[in-house]
Amino acid sequence: MSINSFGRMFRVTTWGESHGPALGAVVDGCPPGVPLDEAAIQRWLDQRKPGQNRFTTQRREPDAVRILSGVFEGRTTGTPIQLMIENADQRSKDYSEIADKFRPGHADLAYWQKYGIRDHRGGGRSSARETAARVAAGGVARAALAELAPGIVIRGCMVQMGKLRIDRARFDWAEVARNPFWSPDAEAARAWAEHLDALRKSGNSVGAVVEVTASGVPAGLGAPIYGKLDADLAAAMMSINAVKGVEIGAGMAAAELTGEENADEIFMGQGGPRYSSNHAGGVLGGISTGQDVVVRFAVKPTSSILRPRATIDKTGAETTIVTKGRHDPCVGIRAVPVGEAMMACVLLDHILLHRGQIGGAVGETRGRVGP
Amino acid sequence: MSINSFGRMFRVTTWGESHGPALGAVVDGCPPGVPLDEAAIQRWLDQRKPGQNRFTTQRREPDAVRILSGVFEGRTTGTPIQLMIENADQRSKDYSEIADKFRPGHADLAYWQKYGIRDHRGGGRSSARETAARVAAGGVARAALAELAPGIVIRGCMVQMGKLRIDRARFDWAEVARNPFWSPDAEAARAWAEHLDALRKSGNSVGAVVEVTASGVPAGLGAPIYGKLDADLAAAMMSINAVKGVEIGAGMAAAELTGEENADEIFMGQGGPRYSSNHAGGVLGGISTGQDVVVRFAVKPTSSILRPRATIDKTGAETTIVTKGRHDPCVGIRAVPVGEAMMACVLLDHILLHRGQIGGAVGETRGRVGP
Amino acid sequence: MSINSFGRMFRVTTWGESHGPALGAVVDGCPPGVPLDEAAIQRWLDQRKPGQNRFTTQRREPDAVRILSGVFEGRTTGTPIQLMIENADQRSKDYSEIADKFRPGHADLAYWQKYGIRDHRGGGRSSARETAARVAAGGVARAALAELAPGIVIRGCMVQMGKLRIDRARFDWAEVARNPFWSPDAEAARAWAEHLDALRKSGNSVGAVVEVTASGVPAGLGAPIYGKLDADLAAAMMSINAVKGVEIGAGMAAAELTGEENADEIFMGQGGPRYSSNHAGGVLGGISTGQDVVVRFAVKPTSSILRPRATIDKTGAETTIVTKGRHDPCVGIRAVPVGEAMMACVLLDHILLHRGQIGGAVGETRGRVGP
Amino acid sequence: MSINSFGRMFRVTTWGESHGPALGAVVDGCPPGVPLDEAAIQRWLDQRKPGQNRFTTQRREPDAVRILSGVFEGRTTGTPIQLMIENADQRSKDYSEIADKFRPGHADLAYWQKYGIRDHRGGGRSSARETAARVAAGGVARAALAELAPGIVIRGCMVQMGKLRIDRARFDWAEVARNPFWSPDAEAARAWAEHLDALRKSGNSVGAVVEVTASGVPAGLGAPIYGKLDADLAAAMMSINAVKGVEIGAGMAAAELTGEENADEIFMGQGGPRYSSNHAGGVLGGISTGQDVVVRFAVKPTSSILRPRATIDKTGAETTIVTKGRHDPCVGIRAVPVGEAMMACVLLDHILLHRGQIGGAVGETRGRVGP
Repeated sequence: MSINSFGRMFRVTTWGESHGPALGAVVDGCPPGVPLDEAAIQRWLDQRKPGQNRFTTQRREPDAVRILSGVFEGRTTGTPIQLMIENADQRSKDYSEIADKFRPGHADLAYWQKYGIRDHRGGGRSSARETAARVAAGGVARAALAELAPGIVIRGCMVQMGKLRIDRARFDWAEVARNPFWSPDAEAARAWAEHLDALRKSGNSVGAVVEVTASGVPAGLGAPIYGKLDADLAAAMMSINAVKGVEIGAGMAAAELTGEENADEIFMGQGGPRYSSNHAGGVLGGISTGQDVVVRFAVKPTSSILRPRATIDKTGAETTIVTKGRHDPCVGIRAVPVGEAMMACVLLDHILLHRGQIGGAVGETRGRVGP
Repeated sequence: MSINSFGRMFRVTTWGESHGPALGAVVDGCPPGVPLDEAAIQRWLDQRKPGQNRFTTQRREPDAVRILSGVFEGRTTGTPIQLMIENADQRSKDYSEIADKFRPGHADLAYWQKYGIRDHRGGGRSSARETAARVAAGGVARAALAELAPGIVIRGCMVQMGKLRIDRARFDWAEVARNPFWSPDAEAARAWAEHLDALRKSGNSVGAVVEVTASGVPAGLGAPIYGKLDADLAAAMMSINAVKGVEIGAGMAAAELTGEENADEIFMGQGGPRYSSNHAGGVLGGISTGQDVVVRFAVKPTSSILRPRATIDKTGAETTIVTKGRHDPCVGIRAVPVGEAMMACVLLDHILLHRGQIGGAVGETRGRVGP
Repeated sequence: MSINSFGRMFRVTTWGESHGPALGAVVDGCPPGVPLDEAAIQRWLDQRKPGQNRFTTQRREPDAVRILSGVFEGRTTGTPIQLMIENADQRSKDYSEIADKFRPGHADLAYWQKYGIRDHRGGGRSSARETAARVAAGGVARAALAELAPGIVIRGCMVQMGKLRIDRARFDWAEVARNPFWSPDAEAARAWAEHLDALRKSGNSVGAVVEVTASGVPAGLGAPIYGKLDADLAAAMMSINAVKGVEIGAGMAAAELTGEENADEIFMGQGGPRYSSNHAGGVLGGISTGQDVVVRFAVKPTSSILRPRATIDKTGAETTIVTKGRHDPCVGIRAVPVGEAMMACVLLDHILLHRGQIGGAVGETRGRVGP
Repeated sequence: MSINSFGRMFRVTTWGESHGPALGAVVDGCPPGVPLDEAAIQRWLDQRKPGQNRFTTQRREPDAVRILSGVFEGRTTGTPIQLMIENADQRSKDYSEIADKFRPGHADLAYWQKYGIRDHRGGGRSSARETAARVAAGGVARAALAELAPGIVIRGCMVQMGKLRIDRARFDWAEVARNPFWSPDAEAARAWAEHLDALRKSGNSVGAVVEVTASGVPAGLGAPIYGKLDADLAAAMMSINAVKGVEIGAGMAAAELTGEENADEIFMGQGGPRYSSNHAGGVLGGISTGQDVVVRFAVKPTSSILRPRATIDKTGAETTIVTKGRHDPCVGIRAVPVGEAMMACVLLDHILLHRGQIGGAVGETRGRVGP
């Protein structure tokens, strides 16, 4: 039971290796009648595409997606949607050295121990290339959300690189598209560029924190107790390569607060309840509150670096390794569209679940507040 | 599709409300032949039991578990194990006020909006009492682990209360049992006692960070890509009430590291690979490495406090609320055995999954390292 | 992964052994707001209850159900509903002989081989008593259907005992309640009574065919390709003890028809499409057509008989066995309410699935036929 | 939640339409290290391939399979295996007439009602072409079985066409490969050829019964209560297009037997228990007994016939339809390899489940019989 699917109602199965002929995703459970074509998906893939500037891997992949099923005359039919991306720029010979050595910080040794066989070229299935399939599936989810819940806006950004954090006072979503780091703070972006250039030159890499926000999410999504919206988001984000921590709202810092500080006070707004703050990150008891859903996750530094590290080979002999190939010095950058895609998939999944269990139109809840 | 089950092979379904007649768990998929009786489960429930000292809720619940099925002549039969805990000390009238008002920071309003009906007594299903069922199920998982993988040791502790962290240099597992806070640092425990007394007197509460470690975990557990061991742990911990963040190994701090610092170097030890450090928290590529599996999670401060907070009622009228009842001033304390229970369930689940997909004895892997 | 749950959105987990303290079902995913109390469930259990006439087992079980969770002030809350039935009339000593011998036609040997341990008292989990939990869960499904899809009527009957079939020309639903066999044909009931009396006296037993019909089922239910309505019904019915065959509509006899005979012609009726016949049994392509959903299943004769049969014991020694205890001479009779319960669960499950994927009110479809 | 996956541990997701660019299956959970290449799968696809003789559809599809992932250097890696079959010989214009009319006996109207949109070309996803993906997945299952449980032999045959049954006394597996009907009885094959020629000329079609037997199945497979081996087989077979009934062992005829006749007596053989007969079809209590697992299913006659049938169109107007296109006059013939494939998938799934829950080598059970 290797588990390559996620989601319950909107179910995505990804497949394919970094250096195989192709990779992709089968999306099962997309509602029928959603307008969809390849361009609608390609748009998101292009954002994740490698080789767009000097801060990401120089592997050149067009990442062109083909829809092989599930769409007829421009609309989804409710049947499985097969998305295929052919691999183009594989330099598998770059990886001949790691056929026998295990890269520290990578999944090489773990896969070897578990399976006794692995496609070592580029990490095979453990490569970050798998996330292209997620972004493609996220494109389908976005198309469905646009139809079912057009009020939802999903946006991601990077809020920390190494020890350098953004200044929340300068947070501006408009800035995100203007720099290569998805930074909502122009000044932070400049500092990061400098920092990353230095790291890259020294053959090193660095970690990052990504934040994904969904606004316009209707109250009531989430399936307690073990399908809580935040638990599903935690699993979704933690399943992305190199992620080591996930936070909802106040996150780990919630530990530092008192009950008085933490509990978001409730007032009555025009369209329903209104909150004084959002420590909850839009989720209470595993159910969306109608506030922005806010998730952050930490991406560890790329383990493929040019600095020699101690390791072993298959025979158990100790040795050192320097990972050549073409790698992202800060893989967190390209994780932003992946985080957005996971958010889109999880929200759509819960919208469908909610509609199934509770009924009514999307965003409709059973309990009313008001006179 | 309210989702009250977790696990794939070792599947736990919890049921019951805080103030209903009983609550419990059905455990499906426990291997046959495991020695099990009520005492073996009660032992863990007693650790979580409320009212054991002045730092936890004064609700007096014996939390006595009954096994209603699945065990015959002292051994599991491979059929579902029903665990029932009768509720004893319900003072439901304490909650009459919150039948119409929504407690800020609680799931009250979210449940109301979603379902249009809720058992408001003590939070119903969103109450922390649900975690008693988890601990009971965890007791079954522990019994099975003792049989199948006796080398695994699962231990939890509290490493932070409010802004007060333990000193890692003083970390001592033996200390955990000696103070009411599960603190591995005696000095931190003293500081916490003082801090919590003050908070309690002022009618306030505080957050905490819990750390759960599993040592002796064989390499190879985990089912990439969407059943990664760390992703499953993230979901498991995030599904516990009041948890807002989950970290594996270096966690959020991984963002601050360089690739050189972060990647745990590999050497050859007696029994197999040996690592210079454990930033990975025992998981790479979603698969256990054989190092300690280390998870941390942040528990927000109890939202039920004696200080008045602004809120609304069902009619939408703004009002204030003071939550009486009997509450934990630091619910993180009692979350420690819950975190341990979730770790036990997730590990057992993955041991069974691994055995199914890969075969061989428990802990056996397919790939060998060595001459 | 012992699998004691069925359903996707309306998920039922049954637990408990024939001679343990209790058995029951946890129902997860029942929509909130459904009127429900114990009497509403008891009503169906009473129909299945043993010992009601000389043609069923003389075990005296009140089969009184208790609701332990998920219902508040007479309505479901959307949280798990725990249903418990305590076992009362266990004469476990009747089974001491079969602790070591395996009854032919029973699951005794198969359970022993698989698990290496079994609760031999009354067959443990493989006993037909497990179906009491199904009927209880079916009671919840019926209550939800009454609320969500009040037009659906589910009725079961017995259409064959041994070689004696009903005469379809005499089929009358009203007759079903008037005889102890659920026979829609009064004459057949008389013949069966005579036949069964003779068999019982000779210590033998006999098989039967049960037919369950659901009318008023909206078109559009079913989730191709592997959640087809008929495939789910087939699994549901085949999972009932002693069932060896399942048919939808024309069933096995479809093999004998030509295409011209088999295809139900379509005409236009008042409320939508109207069919000339119902060889399809209300399901085409795995999706309900709006016609009656018709399922039949064959129940093999009770294997516990008073006539000596050759068998072996645990040591492998050959021996003979005569099964005393109190058994149904025609277990098909009591399978009727079980088949109805499974139909109710499957239909509700698919209504919720359909509502999730397609949206709209229950019974609403996306495609219209008409001007 | 359109459900296009089946299996729990060995999980197959099929995708693709009859007249889209391609169709296929993603196989998740195949154990690592299994020798596999395209030829090993093609071999089974060739058996199901259309246009091989005058008794099957004249559509010419090479049905050439490509493995896009999950196999490295000739062995499975434990990661998802994507199998793609490109559609070649689509004459979509044959179907222009049925864009607006609904074929009786087909899923046309049901899909339209459910989804409000459908790929009408060749039935889209409801076409029997979907079964090519099953056969491909079955090829993977067979390769894994050959490795894990080499003693298992899966064979299918046709035992009835229309009212013409085989003579069991002439049953000969060797005959199956010698006639175009998979008939184990040469004389029956001759009668069927004559019968089918006549039907074809008259533009009519006919139903059939297929029987699939697995011998060498170890005792102990099956996961009670809702993952019973026979319940899973029932769902698997009923999910094949046009199947209306499924039988295990004695099947529907079990209703006609007495308990004395039906219960297979147990004796002690060389390798373990031995049975006097196999009314059980190799499954008791949902668990394999070690006897041959025997499943039969009825395939209704092809609904696409050249004889005019009454139907309606999208506007609700009554009309008649004659289905041209290229169709199998007895679709049961090509269902034989599909039934075999489903058997292979279900058995492998249960082998992996059993290994996970019970442990030990494949085929090993926990309970011993013997001195």
